[in-house]
Amino acid sequence: AQRLLAVLLLLQPAAAVWPRPQVQRSPPGGGRCLLPPARFRFGHAAGSAVGPGCTVLEAAFQRYRALLFAAGRPTGEAGGGAAGGAGALFLWGTHVEKETVCGFPAGLETFSQLVGRDQNGTYYINKTEIVDFPRFPHRGLLLDTSRHYLPLRAILETLDVMAYNKFNVFHWHIVDDPSFPYESSTFPELSKQGAFNAMSHVYTAGDVRTVVEHARLCGIRVIVEFDTPGHTLSWGPGAPGLLTPCYSGKHPSGTYGPINPILNSTYQFVTSLFQEVSSVFPDFFLHLGGDEVDFTCWKSNPEIHAFMKQMGFGEDYRKLESFYIQRLLDIVSSLGKGSILWQEVFDNGVKLRPDSIIHVWKSSKPYMDEMADVTKAGYQALLSTPWYLNRISYGQDWMAAYQVEPLKFEGSAKQKDLVIGGEACMWGEYVDVTNLTPRLWPRAGAVAERLWSNASVRSLQDAYVRLAAFRCQLLGRGVQAQPLYVGYCENEFGGF
Amino acid sequence: AQRLLAVLLLLQPAAAVWPRPQVQRSPPGGGRCLLPPARFRFGHAAGSAVGPGCTVLEAAFQRYRALLFAAGRPTGEAGGGAAGGAGALFLWGTHVEKETVCGFPAGLETFSQLVGRDQNGTYYINKTEIVDFPRFPHRGLLLDTSRHYLPLRAILETLDVMAYNKFNVFHWHIVDDPSFPYESSTFPELSKQGAFNAMSHVYTAGDVRTVVEHARLCGIRVIVEFDTPGHTLSWGPGAPGLLTPCYSGKHPSGTYGPINPILNSTYQFVTSLFQEVSSVFPDFFLHLGGDEVDFTCWKSNPEIHAFMKQMGFGEDYRKLESFYIQRLLDIVSSLGKGSILWQEVFDNGVKLRPDSIIHVWKSSKPYMDEMADVTKAGYQALLSTPWYLNRISYGQDWMAAYQVEPLKFEGSAKQKDLVIGGEACMWGEYVDVTNLTPRLWPRAGAVAERLWSNASVRSLQDAYVRLAAFRCQLLGRGVQAQPLYVGYCENEFGGF
Repeated sequence: AQRLLAVLLLLQPAAAVWPRPQVQRSPPGGGRCLLPPARFRFGHAAGSAVGPGCTVLEAAFQRYRALLFAAGRPTGEAGGGAAGGAGALFLWGTHVEKETVCGFPAGLETFSQLVGRDQNGTYYINKTEIVDFPRFPHRGLLLDTSRHYLPLRAILETLDVMAYNKFNVFHWHIVDDPSFPYESSTFPELSKQGAFNAMSHVYTAGDVRTVVEHARLCGIRVIVEFDTPGHTLSWGPGAPGLLTPCYSGKHPSGTYGPINPILNSTYQFVTSLFQEVSSVFPDFFLHLGGDEVDFTCWKSNPEIHAFMKQMGFGEDYRKLESFYIQRLLDIVSSLGKGSILWQEVFDNGVKLRPDSIIHVWKSSKPYMDEMADVTKAGYQALLSTPWYLNRISYGQDWMAAYQVEPLKFEGSAKQKDLVIGGEACMWGEYVDVTNLTPRLWPRAGAVAERLWSNASVRSLQDAYVRLAAFRCQLLGRGVQAQPLYVGYCENEFGGF
Repeated sequence: AQRLLAVLLLLQPAAAVWPRPQVQRSPPGGGRCLLPPARFRFGHAAGSAVGPGCTVLEAAFQRYRALLFAAGRPTGEAGGGAAGGAGALFLWGTHVEKETVCGFPAGLETFSQLVGRDQNGTYYINKTEIVDFPRFPHRGLLLDTSRHYLPLRAILETLDVMAYNKFNVFHWHIVDDPSFPYESSTFPELSKQGAFNAMSHVYTAGDVRTVVEHARLCGIRVIVEFDTPGHTLSWGPGAPGLLTPCYSGKHPSGTYGPINPILNSTYQFVTSLFQEVSSVFPDFFLHLGGDEVDFTCWKSNPEIHAFMKQMGFGEDYRKLESFYIQRLLDIVSSLGKGSILWQEVFDNGVKLRPDSIIHVWKSSKPYMDEMADVTKAGYQALLSTPWYLNRISYGQDWMAAYQVEPLKFEGSAKQKDLVIGGEACMWGEYVDVTNLTPRLWPRAGAVAERLWSNASVRSLQDAYVRLAAFRCQLLGRGVQAQPLYVGYCENEFGGF
């Protein structure tokens, strides 16, 4: 699960790096290199297995060149000590694997954080040795574009800042009860009827391509979630017959519940939709949701009753849920995709495929018990419960997120290996484009470091200093990241 | 305390008004007037005691003309019913008093909120009768520019949005322990040594004039706070000898405490500083602070000991605090100014001038008991305890602020009359320019309506609908106000 970043910087920290590298030290004798913007360039080292023509790397060179020499960068202390000129940074990869290429942009990020600027405006980097790799392979951030629509540029900016934090998975909770902004080519009525506004509040096929490609160049996978069978109210108007009609006594009440699991037409619809989604979103995984299925409506419906009886489910609606999820899993599997599911699917005893990933989010039961149970059953686990960053509180609440230790549960080494990472979640009840960025950054950075850095990196004091400095760097890059506490950044009024 | 706004709009609500007017009704028969932007103008009614040449009013005409016909305004339902053309809004004042003139911009705000735009882009206003006046005369908002520096434009924008909410007092907590951004002409070293950055993080004399004048044109008074004798650490470097040296055993420890109250030089300094401040800030009132005086440092200092003994204060350091505050009150009074003080000054039994205003903020004792005690002693009271909007919590926390009833304490009618209003406070520990606006708006609107509207206006449901609509109007005016809950505004991607 842990890949070596093929970046060794023979240079030394001007600033502290966020998230903290696995190994970072000054070589004996120290020393400082200057980086003259006019001459500095990125290049490929002789003998590197990665060379020109790698689009991810070429794009990263361009991005980081711009970030390194941006006007808003903080100026630090006056330069001192012997300084040599560093005209170039050469990258050297041992082998061309997907992970190696993904690692390069992360290495450039580290490099960029080490570059300082003295009071004369001269760019420099202190000689530093860094060996780095992530602790967990899945370091995700969830955005919810159903409770409030987020314009494309807010998503793209978030992807940029995710990359600065070495997050590598964008979990796009794209639709839910309140609105359906995904413009489907197979079922265009879904967004026409289900978006807040079918013209201005939708993601077109082009928008989705832009997000996926922007993410790819940042070393980020996009895992889209189409949550079913609950959380689908906005699907109803554009997909007649899909949702379960709720009954009041003997008559339909006019309201609707979860997707109707007893009709063949439901599975035809789901197959067609996920067929499209599977090709639009290239990642191997789809997030299938499965959380918070309310049985009330199913219980009220006489046709569901009859079906339950026919299937021998008795009064156990979890069996009906299981029936739906298992068919869904088969459909998704037949499309060549892997599945991630919210924990209820596991809790309710749904029979899962062995490669399913269970996403732990509930707080009704201690989340560490759930992590133990999920991994004991042999499933891979993702942690989110302590990282619901939409749940704000007064003060430095990043600290609670930071202090989480994802492997602190009773279990074997094999179980621990099944924890592939976690996700910071920014649900959208109270968040839209007006407050997303300051609410997310630098708080989500706490989760980023917990998932990237060594388990032994736990000092709040050390983290505070580095996170505060990193936040000033974010301001310099034009990101409206909020302060940790009292103070200021020298460069803080560049972009605002 | 309550003044009639000399504005009667013979027109009717297209939208709900925030804060809710005292009386608002549709005249029999209803009807709608169109407002063609090319022809529409503001003017003075024949016989009005206010006429052309009133700068506040002319500025308000300009501002509201721009706001009325701004590109970002929401479009509403399609027009319908009989429509007449309204080419002008004429204002008519009964007499030229300060309050009348201040009332006009508030009336224009109400008018602007009533103007709708149909789907063809046509501006209209439904015929409405409004009688309006504020319930409390002091409707304040506190910003803290010491814990984080706020750039001038953030203050000016806040003043604009205050006016939209009919706030009329900007309480400028300009300096405190962390930094001293006020550039004093008498003591320039204070900001040179005490600002975060003496060049970029200061308010020059010109900046202050800009704030005061901008506020005046918005119908807002600026009450500046120079908090003493505590909360003055940032004053120390620029004013040698002002702060009390703390002792560790028999020797000075190198740290400093509150202002040193036993030296004549202290009172000379304070007199000169407040002389300057009194002329720079024209409002009759100064906020003198007086909160959270920590006696530890005073207790450690042998010279303070000797003074206490000489004065016969015994071990009662509240008497020393009282000694300082009374001299301060005399100084401020001799400068022709009135005083506002945080509640500790009252709680600690400092002898006050009868016209002092006590600002209630603590939660250690039920704030309504404090309101009762302050007014029973005959002092005017301002409420802030339940309106510390920096203290965020998850969910719709504006509701708690809204449900406060400032007069819900045991006391006589005379006591209730001494409650002149309250202030929403946005302390700066975790707030700077990156998150100020979404954290403040529309949450502070809850306080604005509580202080403006009739005591009977208490329905959360009604408030939710109006506040959500008002927030969409704020977006249309380019204000980054955060959402109340799930949903969207048609116009929300204008400015962001």
